Amino acid sequence: MQNFSFSLPVQVFFGKGQLKHLSAAMEPYGKNVLLVYGGGSIKRTGLYDKVKDVLKDCTIFELGGVEPNPRVSTVRKGVEICRKEGIDILLAVGGGSTIDCSKAIAAAVFYEGDAWDMVLNSRSKAINKALPIAAILTLAATGSEMDGAAVISNDETKEKLSIMSPALLPKIAVMDPENTFTVPASQTAAGSADILSHIMEVYFGAEDTYMTDRICEAIMKTVVHYAPLAMKEPDNYEARANLMWASSWAINGLTNAGKAHDWSCHYIEHELSAYYDITHGVGLAIVTPRWMRHVLSDRTLDKFTAFAVNVWGCDASLAPYELAEKGIEALEAFYKELAIPMTLKELNITTDENFAAMAKHAVDFTGIGSISYVPLTTAEIVGILKQCL
Amino acid sequence: MQNFSFSLPVQVFFGKGQLKHLSAAMEPYGKNVLLVYGGGSIKRTGLYDKVKDVLKDCTIFELGGVEPNPRVSTVRKGVEICRKEGIDILLAVGGGSTIDCSKAIAAAVFYEGDAWDMVLNSRSKAINKALPIAAILTLAATGSEMDGAAVISNDETKEKLSIMSPALLPKIAVMDPENTFTVPASQTAAGSADILSHIMEVYFGAEDTYMTDRICEAIMKTVVHYAPLAMKEPDNYEARANLMWASSWAINGLTNAGKAHDWSCHYIEHELSAYYDITHGVGLAIVTPRWMRHVLSDRTLDKFTAFAVNVWGCDASLAPYELAEKGIEALEAFYKELAIPMTLKELNITTDENFAAMAKHAVDFTGIGSISYVPLTTAEIVGILKQCL
Repeated sequence: MQNFSFSLPVQVFFGKGQLKHLSAAMEPYGKNVLLVYGGGSIKRTGLYDKVKDVLKDCTIFELGGVEPNPRVSTVRKGVEICRKEGIDILLAVGGGSTIDCSKAIAAAVFYEGDAWDMVLNSRSKAINKALPIAAILTLAATGSEMDGAAVISNDETKEKLSIMSPALLPKIAVMDPENTFTVPASQTAAGSADILSHIMEVYFGAEDTYMTDRICEAIMKTVVHYAPLAMKEPDNYEARANLMWASSWAINGLTNAGKAHDWSCHYIEHELSAYYDITHGVGLAIVTPRWMRHVLSDRTLDKFTAFAVNVWGCDASLAPYELAEKGIEALEAFYKELAIPMTLKELNITTDENFAAMAKHAVDFTGIGSISYVPLTTAEIVGILKQCL
Repeated sequence: MQNFSFSLPVQVFFGKGQLKHLSAAMEPYGKNVLLVYGGGSIKRTGLYDKVKDVLKDCTIFELGGVEPNPRVSTVRKGVEICRKEGIDILLAVGGGSTIDCSKAIAAAVFYEGDAWDMVLNSRSKAINKALPIAAILTLAATGSEMDGAAVISNDETKEKLSIMSPALLPKIAVMDPENTFTVPASQTAAGSADILSHIMEVYFGAEDTYMTDRICEAIMKTVVHYAPLAMKEPDNYEARANLMWASSWAINGLTNAGKAHDWSCHYIEHELSAYYDITHGVGLAIVTPRWMRHVLSDRTLDKFTAFAVNVWGCDASLAPYELAEKGIEALEAFYKELAIPMTLKELNITTDENFAAMAKHAVDFTGIGSISYVPLTTAEIVGILKQCL
């Protein structure tokens, strides 16, 4: 087990009606609030009105229309409002995109220069100051409500990059599973694929970390158990609650404690959604099995057999490579059960024309070629992408 | 899943040589430090000198000799030093007893009245202020390094009671598995039994909480896997590291998120160690199988069969009650593998003369008769204790 630090100071209020705690929890941070949200579903569901009602003592400014892959242009708008109105705290009401956009705004307010430069420079110039953020989660997927990371897209340069800092960790997270009852089946599926991917990215890592690995399996089993149920019964509270809690714990630091990570599938998918604006979870589901078959080797075999047996209940007495393949097949069957498109063609990506540029960008801007569990060359990334067509 | 709140702001530094972070982490809290420790093993191992060395810029006062079941008389001594010397922060170097004692001191400093009155009144008069605490863990067992609870004994009145408050959560925890290499086999065994018990107390709870239950099983499997190895190979880093991390997560809030608890075995054991000053983990190991057989019923059966299959790998095709019994037998066999005495007679407790008074105290001062998963009467508690003789 490698050395690590751990701290999780976000104040979570989990369960039915927990919105009632928001006002008191936000109070220490100030009264000038920037309410950030997406396409307006929170208005249709009534959550918008409920939030305004519990915060009636606050002055609320608004930034709506955050995109599913949040754009730096929207971040810039948010920064402008924060500076002009002297915003004290950001309140993100939505899924990962809204929370990520809020995080980027919260940090960029203190950055001298353009928000995209902050993103580009965040590897060399660490982000260490941000406005406080509260989040009301409406989609179980990215785990952004309980981590210090955000992913931002630049639609002009076709780039999608992440920023990361303890300063970006939300101070408050209201997690009411009932707020996810209206999430459509396709988004429930994509969100579940995202959760699963966050765990697989660290489960397939260099070290054997017994407890961490068993916890990864526990959360993966939770997703496998409840995602189909949440799609069939959108208002099944236990299914929504378990998926929501799983989304947070998949990526809040526990599942990677003491081990190196991979994240190659995320790096590849970020290129896909930067170029084609596809749904992140769907892209991950398409890439992952192809990545798995590419990296399966004597070195990685034990990880894959443990995955097959402990997550999917495959027969441990099978020959190791056969067992590993059974686990990958079980994952594919699960994605298909969730009705996720399993080829890029189904997303209208029909040629490999951008794959070389995408692969080069991934190698240049991420750890995929160097620190990933199985480092990949540009040629290998192109090969994996071609398998996805 | 029930509603719950969750926050875990303790700053953990986990791994080899992490003591190097202590000075900078403590710095914001002040320079006047009360160093709290137990019987002096930290002097023999050299840890005491290392701590003094990294804190050479601080003024260090000392309270040594904290008992294995820490006494309120020692808490009073600590309070006196804190008040007299204007202590800024307590540094507990040891296992759960030392950290628990430090927590009680930290809170009692602000209590107008005697420290034992604070303990007795803590149910009606919540503890909401305490001096900051840093902990350097030297024994994987109680999880006190990452929770807000402490258990204090009163040797005059033969009482052992817990206090609980978010204010008691340590600010800093240095968790270096190498600091547990010198823990003797018997203490490694008792500590492992304590960890396991913390999880079983919440695993056997009223609700089905799928993800939480799977995580409980993951941590229980970790203890089962590594405790025998740590006893055989005291300097096996992976074994010590996994047990240490398991000790924290068994009781820091994740394993009981969203569900009601039991804690009956702890309540009964606290009476045993209050009367007979026995090792907590040993008392738990003796009580637990007897409690299990007493509460096994149609209502609790599913919990026991899941325990048998998912933790101990028992054959799921067995008839349910037979399967449940196999799980309990597997737990007993595990305790025996750890060479833990499995009867009270082996601890020189040979008569039932105090059992009625102990049972009455448990019912009067804990939730055992009311809010436990399976509430117990005094007669039932006496019955369980007699089974332990």
